[in-house]
Amino acid sequence: MAGSICQTRLLSLFDYKTEKYIVAKNKKVGILYRLIQLSIIGYIIGWVFLSKKGYQETDEAIQTSVITKLKGVSVTNTSESGVLVWGPEDYVIPPQGEAVLFVITNFLETPNQNGRCIRKDENSTSTCEIYGWCPTERKYKPQGPLLANAENFTIYIKNFIRFSKFAFSKSNVLKTNDDSYLKKCRYDEELHPYCPIFRLGEITRRAGHNFQDMAAFGGSIGIMIEWDCDLDKGDSRCHPRYHFTRLDISSDKTVAMGFNFRHTRYYKNEAGESYRSLFKVYGVRFNIMVNGKVGEMLFFKCWNVSKICVCLILANLYLTSKSTKKIDQLILCLLFFSKYKQ
Amino acid sequence: MAGSICQTRLLSLFDYKTEKYIVAKNKKVGILYRLIQLSIIGYIIGWVFLSKKGYQETDEAIQTSVITKLKGVSVTNTSESGVLVWGPEDYVIPPQGEAVLFVITNFLETPNQNGRCIRKDENSTSTCEIYGWCPTERKYKPQGPLLANAENFTIYIKNFIRFSKFAFSKSNVLKTNDDSYLKKCRYDEELHPYCPIFRLGEITRRAGHNFQDMAAFGGSIGIMIEWDCDLDKGDSRCHPRYHFTRLDISSDKTVAMGFNFRHTRYYKNEAGESYRSLFKVYGVRFNIMVNGKVGEMLFFKCWNVSKICVCLILANLYLTSKSTKKIDQLILCLLFFSKYKQ
Amino acid sequence: MAGSICQTRLLSLFDYKTEKYIVAKNKKVGILYRLIQLSIIGYIIGWVFLSKKGYQETDEAIQTSVITKLKGVSVTNTSESGVLVWGPEDYVIPPQGEAVLFVITNFLETPNQNGRCIRKDENSTSTCEIYGWCPTERKYKPQGPLLANAENFTIYIKNFIRFSKFAFSKSNVLKTNDDSYLKKCRYDEELHPYCPIFRLGEITRRAGHNFQDMAAFGGSIGIMIEWDCDLDKGDSRCHPRYHFTRLDISSDKTVAMGFNFRHTRYYKNEAGESYRSLFKVYGVRFNIMVNGKVGEMLFFKCWNVSKICVCLILANLYLTSKSTKKIDQLILCLLFFSKYKQ
Repeated sequence: MAGSICQTRLLSLFDYKTEKYIVAKNKKVGILYRLIQLSIIGYIIGWVFLSKKGYQETDEAIQTSVITKLKGVSVTNTSESGVLVWGPEDYVIPPQGEAVLFVITNFLETPNQNGRCIRKDENSTSTCEIYGWCPTERKYKPQGPLLANAENFTIYIKNFIRFSKFAFSKSNVLKTNDDSYLKKCRYDEELHPYCPIFRLGEITRRAGHNFQDMAAFGGSIGIMIEWDCDLDKGDSRCHPRYHFTRLDISSDKTVAMGFNFRHTRYYKNEAGESYRSLFKVYGVRFNIMVNGKVGEMLFFKCWNVSKICVCLILANLYLTSKSTKKIDQLILCLLFFSKYKQ
Repeated sequence: MAGSICQTRLLSLFDYKTEKYIVAKNKKVGILYRLIQLSIIGYIIGWVFLSKKGYQETDEAIQTSVITKLKGVSVTNTSESGVLVWGPEDYVIPPQGEAVLFVITNFLETPNQNGRCIRKDENSTSTCEIYGWCPTERKYKPQGPLLANAENFTIYIKNFIRFSKFAFSKSNVLKTNDDSYLKKCRYDEELHPYCPIFRLGEITRRAGHNFQDMAAFGGSIGIMIEWDCDLDKGDSRCHPRYHFTRLDISSDKTVAMGFNFRHTRYYKNEAGESYRSLFKVYGVRFNIMVNGKVGEMLFFKCWNVSKICVCLILANLYLTSKSTKKIDQLILCLLFFSKYKQ
Repeated sequence: MAGSICQTRLLSLFDYKTEKYIVAKNKKVGILYRLIQLSIIGYIIGWVFLSKKGYQETDEAIQTSVITKLKGVSVTNTSESGVLVWGPEDYVIPPQGEAVLFVITNFLETPNQNGRCIRKDENSTSTCEIYGWCPTERKYKPQGPLLANAENFTIYIKNFIRFSKFAFSKSNVLKTNDDSYLKKCRYDEELHPYCPIFRLGEITRRAGHNFQDMAAFGGSIGIMIEWDCDLDKGDSRCHPRYHFTRLDISSDKTVAMGFNFRHTRYYKNEAGESYRSLFKVYGVRFNIMVNGKVGEMLFFKCWNVSKICVCLILANLYLTSKSTKKIDQLILCLLFFSKYKQ
């Protein structure tokens, strides 16, 4: 008797239970109902799949490396420093081509400072009674940039990106057989998107500021490189895009303009005593930031989910000949597919 | 005949099929059923929408720029180097105000090294038979920091952030008309959240360590700046928050304490021969890291999804006068809305 | 009368309405139906939960700090510079142990440049009529690396990571009582995963290139450190993994090989006049990039969602004794659970 109940229960597990339906032959209601279904499917396919690319796997963990190189020469003539010739090895700090670099456009040298300050006669200005380096730096209000032609310097930005998920790597420098191309080209969004050489004046202009205004007191410019790549369309459609912003003026107008710092050069005289030159340098700081993402339709994932969807729909068609429920399941299936793309 | 079947099939596509329902007038079961529905809707609205802000679009791709500046002077007196005055241009490496910077608190100078090591008499210590710089650096076990007052140095951190999706940018420096404010203020979470000036000793104290202990052998401090902004509440509610951690002691107590490196200054004598000073410097390395996200309710997205939801519900109300199914559709609609917020 | 209708409507809100079912005792259809249900549940549990770890909360906002230190000595002998001994303080730029560092493997020194160029007799090569530093740098095509044994230099990489969401921090350096371990060990994926000391030659070999080939003209190597940690399995299962890539050769073979830059050392003679040495340095640039994520099952979240699921299923079981609908709700519940893990 107990076995019989158990058996009945087990068998009933494989009963197919379905709702009783009424078919209302009301065309108005029927069309409205189909329209609603169509709009939902249209929304999922149109917005989620095509517009948002829900069928793709994406990778936002960009690995990036930036190398910079400047070109240009300037000459300054000041009472403290005399005639000086400035090459990139002098006006770029640090010189090794980092993603954050500083270009000197203005400076004040305090030469021959030494650490032993002797009290001279009272009306001398270079007297200091505390420990310190003498003579002390004079008060200095920049009048204009000393490296006036700094806006004609050019910066070459080499950016390498890699996405490990898709083993995809690319550079912002053009593959070319013309060796001299990278010596004479200038960046242009339309004509030369793979020539990463910019005039400094052009960069500040694109950021909405005048180079000469920035150069006297210094400033900070952000260079954003954005990579938004759809690998399904081919590697050649994956371009870098450049944006330029001034970083020391924010949208809420906080007071933080200008940029300067001090650095030193140390010397020793014949007696082995140290003396130094103190440089207060003003200039433009460039901060190169890279971000990006790639998307690709992965066959395995696609096939994996599609298979289940197709099974589901086919089985459903078999089970219920004329049902609205299969459309509900199609929606659930699409939801699924778009959800587990990651 | 065939046409007739086809026509019938086409027309039947617009039949409205609905389930047959039984209404059970059981109050206990009915109340329980409504309670379950309420709890699901409450969960979605309360947790997903209000607590997790599912209705907002977020942007986590922060673009950030950090500039630092130190202030403070110290004096050291050692047998090798004599009396030295240390300003920021000397004790900050590199001097140009990077997000990763090193503050010297202790050092050992080996002056007058030259590359030609001559074999002197046997009991001389400065003899070297291999190629190298002589005299070689002596063994040195730091006793205490030489720049003892380094904990009173102040660091000024200027952080600029930008989120390109919302064209929102902000800085951690207060907009003020009082020019001298940034000269005398000190950071305080409650009173001065927009004064980004910190005593070094205060930073290590907040990281749970004593500056003098770190200063002798060196160490590494992480300064995290977090921006978590809800733009719907207005820009003024978007504050930076600062966290401080010691980076050279990890939670699993790995052996990696202390921080030092060597750098050199090169000189030439009258004969044009090179000699140098080798500095082994100990100190505190500050590593400023910024992360953050912003959220904002985008009207277009909201309207787009809401419209479909509203249509769906209204149409449903029309089709089925007294149905629990409309609540299921409300849930599906809410799920949708929260899912495609990104 | 109006009150009566209102009351009826209110009461009918608590009616429990259920669909009428037909039980089809068709075993074939029933088994197929159950199989479909099982495959969906299997997919969710197997793929979403177990494979994709849908039950975990993840944190990808890694906070990371990298410190590097090089060891090794080399000797060069050139006509311009004479015999030079190179220690890490000389061949690493910058010397302070950054995550991006440059190791000099080849150089050209132009010593004793000064800013006053006098026109000498016509057949002199060091004449310049424009402003500039003289003598000018000679044309130089590297024949081979001058620091030939640079491939035997070792780099020690100290990487500290922290995930603020789980207050989890770890370092890539082993906790050990053996002080000398970090002096003699070399990284090995199997034997010494926590010894972060690499021969430079080994790094380029793993990146698929020969160090001597890179060393003459310079190059750029990316060192990726990946942390993928499942905290549910314990901290000790959270290992760093190292990957090495050459960054100046991209997959689309863009022309951008080699790496060099110029830097200077300034001197003054007895008369206080400046002269300098200009160094054009070639070498390998190492760029250490860290990324990672951690996952952990958070009890609160789990409990929170599970509770609702369990309630839902129990109530459902009570309401409908033998229903397929409870399986649909189980699916919805699982979907919920996996969706709101973040």
